[in-house]
Amino acid sequence: MSELRQDPITHDWVIINPERARRPHDGDGGECPFCPGNESQMPEETDRIDDAQGRWIVRAAPNRYPTLDVERRAAVRYSEVPEGWRRLPAYGQHEVIVESPLHDATLASLPVERLRDVLEIYVRRFRVLAALTGVARHVVLFKNQGRRAGTSLSHPHAQIVATPVVSPEVRVRTQEEVAIFDSTGHCGMCHVAGRELGGGERVVHRSAHFATLAPYASRVPWQIQIVPLRHAPSFGEVKSVELDDLAPHLHAVLGALHAVLEDPHYNLVVMTPPLDQVHRLANHWFIDVQPRITLRAGFELGSRIVVNVQTPEAAAQALRARLPQA
Amino acid sequence: MSELRQDPITHDWVIINPERARRPHDGDGGECPFCPGNESQMPEETDRIDDAQGRWIVRAAPNRYPTLDVERRAAVRYSEVPEGWRRLPAYGQHEVIVESPLHDATLASLPVERLRDVLEIYVRRFRVLAALTGVARHVVLFKNQGRRAGTSLSHPHAQIVATPVVSPEVRVRTQEEVAIFDSTGHCGMCHVAGRELGGGERVVHRSAHFATLAPYASRVPWQIQIVPLRHAPSFGEVKSVELDDLAPHLHAVLGALHAVLEDPHYNLVVMTPPLDQVHRLANHWFIDVQPRITLRAGFELGSRIVVNVQTPEAAAQALRARLPQA
Repeated sequence: MSELRQDPITHDWVIINPERARRPHDGDGGECPFCPGNESQMPEETDRIDDAQGRWIVRAAPNRYPTLDVERRAAVRYSEVPEGWRRLPAYGQHEVIVESPLHDATLASLPVERLRDVLEIYVRRFRVLAALTGVARHVVLFKNQGRRAGTSLSHPHAQIVATPVVSPEVRVRTQEEVAIFDSTGHCGMCHVAGRELGGGERVVHRSAHFATLAPYASRVPWQIQIVPLRHAPSFGEVKSVELDDLAPHLHAVLGALHAVLEDPHYNLVVMTPPLDQVHRLANHWFIDVQPRITLRAGFELGSRIVVNVQTPEAAAQALRARLPQA
Repeated sequence: MSELRQDPITHDWVIINPERARRPHDGDGGECPFCPGNESQMPEETDRIDDAQGRWIVRAAPNRYPTLDVERRAAVRYSEVPEGWRRLPAYGQHEVIVESPLHDATLASLPVERLRDVLEIYVRRFRVLAALTGVARHVVLFKNQGRRAGTSLSHPHAQIVATPVVSPEVRVRTQEEVAIFDSTGHCGMCHVAGRELGGGERVVHRSAHFATLAPYASRVPWQIQIVPLRHAPSFGEVKSVELDDLAPHLHAVLGALHAVLEDPHYNLVVMTPPLDQVHRLANHWFIDVQPRITLRAGFELGSRIVVNVQTPEAAAQALRARLPQA
């Protein structure tokens, strides 16, 4: 039943998945499937990090209500999709990363060393899913914090999805990044980060290996992007020493976001290029954080020009005020 | 303060408009600015249709809290945008179309002849805004029904915005439409409509000049598209005889949508190409209706692959059951 369909005009892919409507939500009456003791409510664990007593502090497992399911991998290959309405079985891999045994924790409230463990699992699962030859053309790693960000369960968790098609977002972004490289000879993100660090009015935080910026053309109030200062095309190439720096960096900026916005609902996405078309000089991975303050309405749906009621300069200033001064 | 900014990597345009945060909302305590008697709360009327007693039944006026403002048209032309961070004054035209004097009406509850008046004003204002030489490169006509669709005032109204930049949505759609035409020699929408009417499982309704379809790759549950059967690239070219047919057609399909979904929140958008790059053979205007049942979350933000928990075939069947049989 579940399948990937391609729009015959825009060529965007859509996942039609009626089973997803059945996934559990907070308040359904059941126990939280992510709390310690309820591990049997999830499929078999794929990865974990334990504390000194052997209790898990972060763990990963397949999603019980997957958007895409590796079991559905059929004989159909992309190149064999027939003429006419284009569809593929909804195959792929969809895992959940439970970020803490504590039901009421948030990513921002975790101690730095626990955040380091979460990032460690992010990278490990990214690398495993990216290596699913014949399945993955793109890996999306994301986190929905809060009901308005679309989460169905409040226990802190992230999700990682390997898809057999290239998504419209990364297709367009990659095209534009390559075009910038072809016309200027440099990586667009490296150039932007350099200029922003020189100017400063949209810089939120800086550490040895990362800068957090309020993007010049921010799409939503309080949007931030955490950009690696070393040019690296894909999230899979992040180094251990960079994760050591990213953990306190993320701890600081998410702390500032929580201080400014009370109980913020937000989406966090690791933006990284399609696996089979990485342009080593043009692509540049980063983490995008978009708080969910405002709704997208008809103008945005009809144009994809978003209306942002806040300047990124004001956001950067307010967030900087909550961070230790450099 | 308000301005258009271009993302330096994706080249998407964003409107940064802090004033929009101050617009009135239901429950602010004030009187509804769209109700008869409160006309002075809006800027001077630009168009209206009266009943036999000379009372307005539909009227248009500039938005008091415009996303884009014609007054801001500066000496800056698009071609003169300087190097570096690309920005333009937020000029354009933003009007509100009040669709009924009745505060609690909905588009679906209006009698057919009143809906004909609404459509008449839609077309008239579209043609006027499209003719704003030097301002408009694209006109977005849309309606937000209900809080979850992003409306701030419940009195039935639509909005129309003329922008000086081409939006990402229509830029991509036009590119794909032209590519389809170049490789096949026909309009993609004409081809899709013809095939759908032949098959039937995603056909919701058909009249002399229009077909309502549940799109093959529907992006949200209950999405419908009302497609003109005559090939016409732009909404501005719709004929009077077609509006005579569209009014009862829209009355029927919105009535079915309201019957199936209780008090549906939805966005309605007239999709039409950029004004200065109409491809007469490849572009094909249509009306897109997207109910707001589900939220977009991190996966969608990171990929723009949407997950739809309902098949369009099931939606078409349920909606057809609420419509008079052909």
